[in-house]
Parts: sequence; structure tokens; C-alpha cells
Amino acid sequence: MDKLKNAIREKGRVLSTEVLKVDSFLNHQIDVDLMMSVGEELARRFQTDSITKVLTIESSGIAPSMTAARDLGASLVFARKKKSLTMNNDVFVSQVYSFTKQETNDITVSKDFLNKNDRVLIIDDFLANGQAAFGLIDIVQQAGATVVGLGIVIEKSFQDGRQRLEDQGYRVESLARVHSLENGQVTFVDELQLSNI
Amino acid sequence: MDKLKNAIREKGRVLSTEVLKVDSFLNHQIDVDLMMSVGEELARRFQTDSITKVLTIESSGIAPSMTAARDLGASLVFARKKKSLTMNNDVFVSQVYSFTKQETNDITVSKDFLNKNDRVLIIDDFLANGQAAFGLIDIVQQAGATVVGLGIVIEKSFQDGRQRLEDQGYRVESLARVHSLENGQVTFVDELQLSNI
Repeated sequence: MDKLKNAIREKGRVLSTEVLKVDSFLNHQIDVDLMMSVGEELARRFQTDSITKVLTIESSGIAPSMTAARDLGASLVFARKKKSLTMNNDVFVSQVYSFTKQETNDITVSKDFLNKNDRVLIIDDFLANGQAAFGLIDIVQQAGATVVGLGIVIEKSFQDGRQRLEDQGYRVESLARVHSLENGQVTFVDELQLSNI
Repeated sequence: MDKLKNAIREKGRVLSTEVLKVDSFLNHQIDVDLMMSVGEELARRFQTDSITKVLTIESSGIAPSMTAARDLGASLVFARKKKSLTMNNDVFVSQVYSFTKQETNDITVSKDFLNKNDRVLIIDDFLANGQAAFGLIDIVQQAGATVVGLGIVIEKSFQDGRQRLEDQGYRVESLARVHSLENGQVTFVDELQLSNI
């Protein structure tokens, strides 16, 4: 998705060969027009898949999930990173380790909002090693529902998340696939393929 | 806003005289169409106020803020509830006590995303005693920016948040004002005024 890749090039900050900071349009300040376009494109890729629920994780997954859920005619549910006191115990729980934050969070989804008839599109802002994705998949499976696929805003293709997901048969659609952050530069997977022609 | 009040009546759950749970359309599952309408109505109320930034707080403030920011032509920034390791130290910080979660969180906003020329609309899902609102106001003031007003999805009018904000001169626009949760029933402020005629 060119508009997204341009934003990453122009506004993303490469902090190391592992860390791409996109706080100015996705993770802290939100470029609303861009995130609405991102959601629309994710919906387009799954439009014939009879999605009933979009499942994401707070907080950065919410913005791109809004128009995706709207265009798919699906409900949007966001997993919470820790249990609040007003949430009853009737929840699905999984564990997610964040390398960025160096901590393990429980993620929870109320049993009221996922059931075995649901066909679920999982949306997340980043795919790196797949920790969050597998936590969300675990929750969908606990509900007996079907994971139709994963819609990702930015994939770090130099980490093994996509491979691990595809090895287990999951469909992954990523709108920007980052091949490398070497030398402070963002290189996308499709640029690499072009330069190999 | 009738559509919102109907959702509160039909889908809200009164857990006590203090606690209204709206997990099925705002705080956990999101009714995307409704939240987009909520954001559009908040934008309408501030459309002549030259808003440059919409400031909200993760996670439930994000959904209603999307269309508000879009329609106002403003950037959207969400305050974070705790500092992540990839965020630098160049942040504004304030403290917010949550009665629901019985804990105090630091809320932070990067200094990159608020400056003294900003005219800020603060949006939040609930207004009760005003803890979150005053934390966000504190951050806007640290930036030297202007708080134009507060846009609230659901106001618990039986708590003193609105009064405290108005006493300090802030404009508060709430789309549903709950007068009482007595007897397991939601009564809105405008119903009360009607029944007093």
C-alpha cells in the first residue's frame, strides 16, 4: 500500500536494526485519514470471507480496525492487556510477551463477544515474531471460533512471525512488509524483489 | 444524542448505583457505526472552534475520536497510560487515579505532538469525577497549548466532574448525561427535565 509505505519512509524513525518507531501516525499520534484507508484496504482483502468479527488488541490496533470492521459489516472487539475490576471472570485469557516493553501481559476477551460461529479477522499494527498474533489466535480457538486470517499494518519481514503463522496454515495480509532496517534505512520486501529483477 | 441513549438503555448494564457497564458497544466490543456517529456529533459541536488537535486517552477514547478528528481536520493523539521503553523521555506526564481500577496511572504524551499553538479538544468515553479530564488538561497546559473544551461520550451527572470543570471555566459537551443509576435503571438528565415540566 503506497500511501502507507510513503508515511513509513517519511515519518518513521529507525531506532535500531530491530526498532521502527511510527509514533507520529500510528502508535501515539494517529493519522486518521491514513488509518481509515488502511482499514478499508484490509477489509477489501477479506471481503469475500464472511467475516463476523474483527479482533484486535489495545491500543494501536483500534484505529486501523474501525473502517475494516465497518466495511466488512463485522463487530469490532479489542482484547485488553490486563483485567479491569469491572470485568467479570467470564473471559478468555492468553499470555503475550512484548519484546518492546520486556514484559508479559495477560490479554483477555469477554466470553460475551466471541462464540463458535464467529469467523474472525485478527488485525494488529505490527507483526514481528508473532507473539501478539498467537495470543489472539489462542483466544479465538478457546472460543471455538474460526481464524480466517490476519491483517497487519506493518510487518517486520526480517523476523519470523509470518513464517510461523504460515507454517500453521494461517493467511497473513500485511500492507507494508519491511525487509530490513539496516543502515538506518527502511527497505521494503517489494523493493528488494524489484532490485533483483 | 438519541442513538447513543438508546444503546445505553438497550445494551448498557447497571452494575450498581455508580457503575454503568457499556462493554458491548464502547469499552470492549465497539459499535463502529455508533462510535463514528458519536465522533461526528462531537466534531459538529466544536466545528467553528479552530481545533488543531484531538487529545484522548487509551483505549476507549480512540474509537469516538477518529471521526471527530477527521471532521475537524485535526490530528489525533492518544495519551498513554504508562511509559513504554521505546518512548523517549521527552514526554509530558500527569497522574490519573482510576476509581474503577483502583490504581494511579502515569499518563504521558510525547512533546513532539503538542505545542503552544495547539487548540485542543479533549475527548473521553466517560466523565465521572473528572480525574482523567484534569490529567489531560494538565498535559495540555504543560505544552502551553489551549484547552478549547471537552467532548464526552457518557457523563455521570450524579458525580461532580462537570461541575469541577465548569467551575474552572472549561466547556463540556456530553452526548449522554446520566442523571441516575438508581434501582438498576438509567435515567438521563433531559428525561428528568421533561418530567419536571
